[in-house]
Amino acid sequence: MALIVQKYGGTSVANSERIRAVAERVVATAREGNQVIVVVSAMAGETDKLVRFAHEITDAPDEREMDLLLSSGERVTSALMAMAIQKIGSDSMSFTGRQVGIRTDSSHTKAMIESIEADRLKRALGEGKIPVVAGFQGINELSDVTTLGRGGSDTTAVAIAAALKADLCEIYTDVEGVFTADPRIVPDARKMDRVSYDEMLEMASLGAKVLHGRSVEFAKKYSVPLIVRSSFNQAPGTLVTKEDGAMEKVVVTGITHDKNQTRITLKGVPDRPGIAASIFNAIAKANINVDIIVQNVSSDDNATDLSFTVSKSDEKKALEITKKISAELGSRGVTINSNVAKVSILGVGMQSHFGVAARMFETLSREGINIMMISTSEIKISCVIDVKHMEVAVRALHAEFELGQG
Amino acid sequence: MALIVQKYGGTSVANSERIRAVAERVVATAREGNQVIVVVSAMAGETDKLVRFAHEITDAPDEREMDLLLSSGERVTSALMAMAIQKIGSDSMSFTGRQVGIRTDSSHTKAMIESIEADRLKRALGEGKIPVVAGFQGINELSDVTTLGRGGSDTTAVAIAAALKADLCEIYTDVEGVFTADPRIVPDARKMDRVSYDEMLEMASLGAKVLHGRSVEFAKKYSVPLIVRSSFNQAPGTLVTKEDGAMEKVVVTGITHDKNQTRITLKGVPDRPGIAASIFNAIAKANINVDIIVQNVSSDDNATDLSFTVSKSDEKKALEITKKISAELGSRGVTINSNVAKVSILGVGMQSHFGVAARMFETLSREGINIMMISTSEIKISCVIDVKHMEVAVRALHAEFELGQG
Repeated sequence: MALIVQKYGGTSVANSERIRAVAERVVATAREGNQVIVVVSAMAGETDKLVRFAHEITDAPDEREMDLLLSSGERVTSALMAMAIQKIGSDSMSFTGRQVGIRTDSSHTKAMIESIEADRLKRALGEGKIPVVAGFQGINELSDVTTLGRGGSDTTAVAIAAALKADLCEIYTDVEGVFTADPRIVPDARKMDRVSYDEMLEMASLGAKVLHGRSVEFAKKYSVPLIVRSSFNQAPGTLVTKEDGAMEKVVVTGITHDKNQTRITLKGVPDRPGIAASIFNAIAKANINVDIIVQNVSSDDNATDLSFTVSKSDEKKALEITKKISAELGSRGVTINSNVAKVSILGVGMQSHFGVAARMFETLSREGINIMMISTSEIKISCVIDVKHMEVAVRALHAEFELGQG
Repeated sequence: MALIVQKYGGTSVANSERIRAVAERVVATAREGNQVIVVVSAMAGETDKLVRFAHEITDAPDEREMDLLLSSGERVTSALMAMAIQKIGSDSMSFTGRQVGIRTDSSHTKAMIESIEADRLKRALGEGKIPVVAGFQGINELSDVTTLGRGGSDTTAVAIAAALKADLCEIYTDVEGVFTADPRIVPDARKMDRVSYDEMLEMASLGAKVLHGRSVEFAKKYSVPLIVRSSFNQAPGTLVTKEDGAMEKVVVTGITHDKNQTRITLKGVPDRPGIAASIFNAIAKANINVDIIVQNVSSDDNATDLSFTVSKSDEKKALEITKKISAELGSRGVTINSNVAKVSILGVGMQSHFGVAARMFETLSREGINIMMISTSEIKISCVIDVKHMEVAVRALHAEFELGQG
């Protein structure tokens, strides 16, 4: 008997018909002799609706209130899903984040899980119930509701799988798995059967929307095997697991792209120690993640240009902070460019192959695409380019590294 | 400095514009030097939407799941209202039922409040915050979410007012107060300035939808002065308070009607002790409230007909139970009539006046209306009639007892 955590995203539970279909799948898995824990997202569109309400009321909603507001969507789905499973004839019971015992820190809207008690969850499993957990939420030490940020329901699922030492965590979504590139951009993109945690981590951070990075980190840390698959059919999906001999021995595994990027540049920053630290400390304090950072070589006047990218949703706040710091430092001003995209190639095979970066730059150059920023890690290379060239770049790189089905 | 609890119903917080308008009213009350606690309902239509979802999934939703589902609407409003108050520049903070410390029994969907801790609420008031409480909900000893049934947010408001010894509890709705009859049926119905707890209690139980009976009982028990008024204008509303010399010295204060009634009749029930008890115990165990009970005089064969009314939402469950009991008792079967309405006259003055009932029966007779069942208390007389005569009956009685404005 295996213990399986199944997480269903917003499109998988978009309406009562979909919820009933998912309940059938859950019960089928249980009737094959497995223990199943279900984690659900808010019904597609619900979270956006709540966010819209908040912004109709204020342009700067309090984050504690935002968390109470947003956590309601997953609670609704969990109750409806428990009802749907009961309707088929299996015993089921909903759990809020609090009832699962998910304790987080107090970083409202982006909370980190600190511990999971899960006693009540285990008791329910022991009683033969199928627990349905409202994803995306926990409570802090004040007993206030917190939410886990983007991809929070994935994180809930993986964290529960880790806490209960589940055999498998299945992430159900509206795509069939992880592809070598976005099939909407690259028609012959291929679904991967397996991908390593590290590659998946890079893909997540590079903008592939299938899985959120935090949940992959969690899965890697606790060796939880993940499967990404569709709730709309029976295709087997992509297994995200430890890197091993069975991994595809190719240099580049996939191409990702991310339009949710804004570049901010601080011009003429004094080139002395501690400057970068002061800038990025202030930005981190505002709970903003900085992605790529590029600092130019110092010019004659001992000043330099410092560029970095943030996600578009943080653009306004990041710009405000940067302008304040610019004034304090006496730099030559701040520029912003929202028309940028990040295109990346990745693969664990890259570590032992030379010339991959050069091949990427040549490919972009051949297409007449100017590279604005470059960032590399052991298993990925990212280029920030003008957003208008993004699709061309993805297709050219997909072909160059022979990732297609043909 | 007075402590005022203000409760806003669904139409008062129907959209973000209404929420902002209510926030202005709340802050105005606070700036007059009062401490204010706000209690909110779900946005109009939200609860119905959630009920519809549940019924799309199953015809018999589990009540624990139903409570988790339905409690989300009030939570959403509380977060949005706290944001709206903050936006105006006052400090505010949302509270769920759990965070207020509202402990209830485990009668899901119809829970009774057992205690309110309110420590955190008091602390927030002490810090100059305006607390916004999600109405309608509490938690039971398992820490599961419960809801308080119809009019539950009124009950939350009054219970908090009682627990904190508030000076006043204002119930904001979309009508200007308590009327001598429903103005949609009786055009010259008059708004009352004051009404006693007992009259209001009867009115609530008789189907006037302004206030739910449980909240009035609570208010009476703890002597919380209630004001029913509109959130759409500044009219002073109706004060619900102890009966005193200032009360209007009229015999009949108002006419109410209730279409939400079904009559169930058990035919040929053996006329021996304990029969009624066995029937109504079984119905009470199913958490169904029986309203009027009428037992006919025993006929020659020592059998009798027993009729009672329940609300339409309980009709199906009540019929099922009654049929089961009918079979056990060997009675001559069960009939049901959903086309009935209850029309009532009420007033504390009735206690010391004779002939009020006769005047009511004569009025209905003059209009050719047959009376199916009669029920009386010290301050009210109710008649169950065919629903098609309901409006005529209300208008005739309103005129007979001279309740109009003219």
